[in-house]
Amino acid sequence: MVINKSTKFLIVGLGLLGGSYTRGLTEKGYYVEAITKNKEDCDFAIEHEMVKKCSCEVDSEMIKNADVIIFALYPDVFVSWIEEHGAQIRPGTLITDVTGVKGCIVDKIQNMLPPLVEFISAHPMAGREVYGIKNSDERIFYGANYLVVPTQRNTDEGIEACKRIGEILGFGRISEISPEGHDEMIGFVSQLTHFIAVSLMNCYEHERLERYTADSFRDLTRIANINETMWSELFLMNKPALLEQIELFQKNFSQLHEYLKNDDVDGMKRMMITSTERRRKFDK
Amino acid sequence: MVINKSTKFLIVGLGLLGGSYTRGLTEKGYYVEAITKNKEDCDFAIEHEMVKKCSCEVDSEMIKNADVIIFALYPDVFVSWIEEHGAQIRPGTLITDVTGVKGCIVDKIQNMLPPLVEFISAHPMAGREVYGIKNSDERIFYGANYLVVPTQRNTDEGIEACKRIGEILGFGRISEISPEGHDEMIGFVSQLTHFIAVSLMNCYEHERLERYTADSFRDLTRIANINETMWSELFLMNKPALLEQIELFQKNFSQLHEYLKNDDVDGMKRMMITSTERRRKFDK
Repeated sequence: MVINKSTKFLIVGLGLLGGSYTRGLTEKGYYVEAITKNKEDCDFAIEHEMVKKCSCEVDSEMIKNADVIIFALYPDVFVSWIEEHGAQIRPGTLITDVTGVKGCIVDKIQNMLPPLVEFISAHPMAGREVYGIKNSDERIFYGANYLVVPTQRNTDEGIEACKRIGEILGFGRISEISPEGHDEMIGFVSQLTHFIAVSLMNCYEHERLERYTADSFRDLTRIANINETMWSELFLMNKPALLEQIELFQKNFSQLHEYLKNDDVDGMKRMMITSTERRRKFDK
Repeated sequence: MVINKSTKFLIVGLGLLGGSYTRGLTEKGYYVEAITKNKEDCDFAIEHEMVKKCSCEVDSEMIKNADVIIFALYPDVFVSWIEEHGAQIRPGTLITDVTGVKGCIVDKIQNMLPPLVEFISAHPMAGREVYGIKNSDERIFYGANYLVVPTQRNTDEGIEACKRIGEILGFGRISEISPEGHDEMIGFVSQLTHFIAVSLMNCYEHERLERYTADSFRDLTRIANINETMWSELFLMNKPALLEQIELFQKNFSQLHEYLKNDDVDGMKRMMITSTERRRKFDK
């Protein structure tokens, strides 16, 4: 599978990410069809010329017509979809996704697919705190991180094709990571941060809070505006890795807490020096 | 004390905030002098026409000449300065500050000042993760929050003059709050958030971390790039209020942790719905 201008894409699911993939690929001159269950989203995609064809039914012709199918569904919906319709995918088709958890998904999907259908998992790190096709925008990908998450069963060709999609969409850094590495890292950089932001916003109902804050609090809680259905599912699907990250954070938080309780200025400063060094490297 | 174009300002301390006050007041056509202990900063202020006069000594003439003195010093340096030089301030002078903690400062300063010298405390919520006069910029104040922190000993006139300074500098919302209310709120929105960011950055030394992150982690850790001398002092000076906020956060964090451990989807969703509602109100 080499991606070129004759490659036909099918996007399944037109939320924020699916819609943005659709816009990005169409914008770059690729042939794109889409399946999404909501009739309104389907009409929206056609009206805005995001796709050549769109169906709110699972259309066998569209499935057979596709060279690459990109699934932009909630993790459990993705698994059910493959269970129900996966057999219709023709040999030679490449499948990829945008799912935010991998360990519990990738093997399962790879096991269910017909022979010669390759699933190469990907995670575009470009979520937003807004949802739905109406907020979709191909520019959310520009410069963002894009993770390709191969297993032993993926081919070099499949991995390259998946990276190529990331390049076409304008992602900045494109990296490979194992499903286990992915889930550990995402548990830390994404899930734990949402966990903290939600906890913070639950602390207070303060009418005048917004009059008293600086950017620090605004930044830390931006992601507390959260889709509870998707995120509670993501948390549970990555539970072991997330629990580990929570405990690691609690350990460090408690350490700083101890230093404060004991008036241990040197201990606090050491942690601040470490955080400053690491954060600065991070900005480069 | 009514602020008008003949009001003479003296800024003591030319760091990020002192420098930005100086620039902002000069830019608006006010007469500004400054005292700062560092010769280089003094030269910088004069070269950049931020002030009419600058001294790196505590100059009695400048003190006597001032109608309003704004202290932009670390809290303990501010207290020492007033102990040593406060007697030189002439009756009728208005004093204000930018200090990030209030309970342990305001009463102490008010008690030390000569008769008829009014200290009205303020907190411009416009810190940055960069420091020093070279990074000073009057635009950091535009639209930001500005807190006036009066006590029983302040006059209506003094409070109005302090608010007027915030208006001149272009702050957005200008609010009054008590020293105790200030320290509780700042313990939550500012200190706790820095506490969390420092803890987060201490969790991992991961070379490729920057390849895997989305904006959420970047936003939550921006303030982990922190001035350890200033912040360890701020934490200790607000210790009781900060410890309370830490415990409140831990309570909420542990609650969400429990829900996750018990696969309690409804519990997690409830907290996410609350955080979303509160965060949305906050953006308005």
